[in-house]
Amino acid sequence: MKFCSECAHPVSLIIPPDDNRPRFVCNQCGVIHYQNPKMVIGSIPLWKHDDETRVLLCRRAIEPRRGYWTLPAGFMENNETTADAAVRETSEEAGARIELHQLFSMLNVPHVHQVHMFYMATLLDLEYQAGIESLEVKLFTEAEIPWDDIAFPTIAHTLKFLFSDLDRIRKEGGSFNFHTLDIVKPMRAPG
Amino acid sequence: MKFCSECAHPVSLIIPPDDNRPRFVCNQCGVIHYQNPKMVIGSIPLWKHDDETRVLLCRRAIEPRRGYWTLPAGFMENNETTADAAVRETSEEAGARIELHQLFSMLNVPHVHQVHMFYMATLLDLEYQAGIESLEVKLFTEAEIPWDDIAFPTIAHTLKFLFSDLDRIRKEGGSFNFHTLDIVKPMRAPG
Repeated sequence: MKFCSECAHPVSLIIPPDDNRPRFVCNQCGVIHYQNPKMVIGSIPLWKHDDETRVLLCRRAIEPRRGYWTLPAGFMENNETTADAAVRETSEEAGARIELHQLFSMLNVPHVHQVHMFYMATLLDLEYQAGIESLEVKLFTEAEIPWDDIAFPTIAHTLKFLFSDLDRIRKEGGSFNFHTLDIVKPMRAPG
Repeated sequence: MKFCSECAHPVSLIIPPDDNRPRFVCNQCGVIHYQNPKMVIGSIPLWKHDDETRVLLCRRAIEPRRGYWTLPAGFMENNETTADAAVRETSEEAGARIELHQLFSMLNVPHVHQVHMFYMATLLDLEYQAGIESLEVKLFTEAEIPWDDIAFPTIAHTLKFLFSDLDRIRKEGGSFNFHTLDIVKPMRAPG
């Protein structure tokens, strides 16, 4: 941020009075421009058939991580709820109709100022198709998941939580847990 | 938003190519300025004594809702996790040291572009004191909660969830649930 979005004068990065961290403050009109983390919301669309559970993944058509696989997800928009965002992103990226269930995972990614959330979902039919931000959309069993080609750590962790819960439920019954995790960037090596 | 924060030229509210909703786009450099919901994170600091559970509330020293009671909470900052934010806000607003537990409630408030989250917490001592954004900080039993003077609906709902869970746990055992709710603004009356 270089200029005030209210009056177009230059901003300075200073700690305002009664605050404790640097903010972009307009040198002319004094407006403080706060910057806050964003939410990335998606779904885990499941399809059960022949006693086998498959999950719908999208191969990204855009950077970052073009060509890699992800759950349908994206930035939450103003004027919608987290559940609205999950359904919308699943429709936009995977052309998929779902029934949305409970929140399944929440993963903090503080070094990129993001919180990722994924909802359990049931795929309502097999009429899915890649949206403009996807190269292809495909159902995967656990054995078929392309672990080396998953776009982001939050997706890999959420899929691990999913298959771990499915395995437990198959053996012992019960229901899905709610999973939380902080993805901390490795510290840079000294020197 | 009136001017581009990158180049200071005027912005226009238009739907960019490959998008489906209006964004502020710079008429000069073409940068798209996305605006997204913010997270408000807080804690539910509990103190158990003589078989009675008390919750710590803060009376707001700032607008909006100055003079009304709230759980310690505030906007999540960049470079922190949701749990970091809950601990920091509890320290800043209530001067309180807590042990943070699991996420207890998530409430969407789409008409103000916010998602509120509250974590269960245990107060570690009684050395709390009002921070600069609070007029006073005080422990309340369920019977003492000032229901008519609660600052925001998300706080009132979270406190209702809390005492409902405490009552169930007292009678039947078990543990706290995770609660989600959408706070939808009443539609304006026609005419």
